[in-house]
Amino acid sequence: MSIKEKASTKEFPEIKEYHATSCGIFFKRKKLLCTKNSPYQKIEVFENEYFGRILILDGLVQTTERDEFFYHEMLVHPAFVAHPLPQNILIIGGGDGGGLKEILCYPIEQVYLVEIDPLVVEVSKKYFPWLLPSLKDKRSKLLIADGREFLKETDRKFDVVIVDSSDPVGPSLPLHEKDFFEDLKNCLNPEGVVVTQLGSPLYHLDSITKKNIFLKKLFKLVFFYLAPVPTYPGGSWCFAFLSDKVGPFAIKRNPPSGLKYFNLEIHQAAFALPAFMRSVLCKT
Amino acid sequence: MSIKEKASTKEFPEIKEYHATSCGIFFKRKKLLCTKNSPYQKIEVFENEYFGRILILDGLVQTTERDEFFYHEMLVHPAFVAHPLPQNILIIGGGDGGGLKEILCYPIEQVYLVEIDPLVVEVSKKYFPWLLPSLKDKRSKLLIADGREFLKETDRKFDVVIVDSSDPVGPSLPLHEKDFFEDLKNCLNPEGVVVTQLGSPLYHLDSITKKNIFLKKLFKLVFFYLAPVPTYPGGSWCFAFLSDKVGPFAIKRNPPSGLKYFNLEIHQAAFALPAFMRSVLCKT
Repeated sequence: MSIKEKASTKEFPEIKEYHATSCGIFFKRKKLLCTKNSPYQKIEVFENEYFGRILILDGLVQTTERDEFFYHEMLVHPAFVAHPLPQNILIIGGGDGGGLKEILCYPIEQVYLVEIDPLVVEVSKKYFPWLLPSLKDKRSKLLIADGREFLKETDRKFDVVIVDSSDPVGPSLPLHEKDFFEDLKNCLNPEGVVVTQLGSPLYHLDSITKKNIFLKKLFKLVFFYLAPVPTYPGGSWCFAFLSDKVGPFAIKRNPPSGLKYFNLEIHQAAFALPAFMRSVLCKT
Repeated sequence: MSIKEKASTKEFPEIKEYHATSCGIFFKRKKLLCTKNSPYQKIEVFENEYFGRILILDGLVQTTERDEFFYHEMLVHPAFVAHPLPQNILIIGGGDGGGLKEILCYPIEQVYLVEIDPLVVEVSKKYFPWLLPSLKDKRSKLLIADGREFLKETDRKFDVVIVDSSDPVGPSLPLHEKDFFEDLKNCLNPEGVVVTQLGSPLYHLDSITKKNIFLKKLFKLVFFYLAPVPTYPGGSWCFAFLSDKVGPFAIKRNPPSGLKYFNLEIHQAAFALPAFMRSVLCKT
């Protein structure tokens, strides 16, 4: 549809994210709500007429009020409908709390949210409505710590681990490396499931392919799945579902009611891979 | 991934498409290849470093060299793997020839390409490598005509009709209305299948919902399906599969080899609808 620039939005500054050096997404910034520098990254929240509040870390969109459900529902529910008994849960990263709120829909015992940057949590508490109630839930344990260090030191074992990292630059870089996944495996119960975001199948296929090689050495079961995320590069996102014992297709429970993207048909469908992904991921 | 603006791309003009009044996509225009005004619309082709050649009609991205396969494969192959014997084919719109090249992969008898704007065909012949060989194929019949008028006047019947319209503004407006689909139904063989693009599930859900109401009155079988299209609004696109007799799930043949997006797993998966679409499309 031909959308002309409204007179009212013309005056708003334009915020751009490059997806490659020659293209990207832009948003009119109706209101700047917050801009802070932590020791780890630059954190900004602004308001956009269409997407509502948008969280930006080091210039990259992390979450928006309007489309967060695509990403967070698909980050969490595939593991939770497939795991036989998800009781002890770990989220690494995800300080905005979008994944946490989805996890708390299930009758779990405890969920650790291990976020390296306390300022992401503080800012998200203030600007995103879901985080504060999720942290008040007695089952939630917030730890401000380096996810990698936490894994090395903890003697806890987890049923489901969700790696909600930002992209492999800045503080999230170690969360994309082989050593991290080895440590992670050591903290899993035998029936444990790990889900991690892997980036855009269009823009990041090389890095997905590289991870596939070491993930297949570490885990007996490696599945990739996809979901649309309108404000992420290319509009579609890749996740890995990793386990030694639990595959994604034997459904153990229904998802909670009231979800906006996920359902059990979508669950099965998300694991179908396009020809261009199959041809590189199934060779390795 | 943090992508900085390269010095080399800074000088290139920025081409923007608004998806709502406050957000959209941008491309650096490395080289302007063509800009023409037809009686129907403004036609532009430019070169972008990442997406290659991009065809723009009235300011909206129609196709790019790099990502056209998502859209064109998903526009064509679902109907062709499901129809019992697709011999006589009609494309309405689609003057860029992306759909035509996919159709010609099958052993069909004849395909009519009915495009209203001869200048779209001329420009696409020059700048997109697939159109000219497709038009030279003896099975292809190019007609420069109003698709709606063609349907009213022809006494031909078709097995598969592909409506590859642009959005419901400008010359494509009538291709989105009930009368058009009534005429279209009159030109179908009893086992005929129609596929039409319906827009973005995020941005155009209202118009998809309205069409659903009259499509369900016209066709016994109405299925919606989805595909990622990185350069279209929201990065994901909706199509309808319409028929009185032929559903999409009983596969009649394999797709051609060498496809980049489509395969039979993707075919089944594409028909799974997100919760927010099901809740509005299954009520009506």
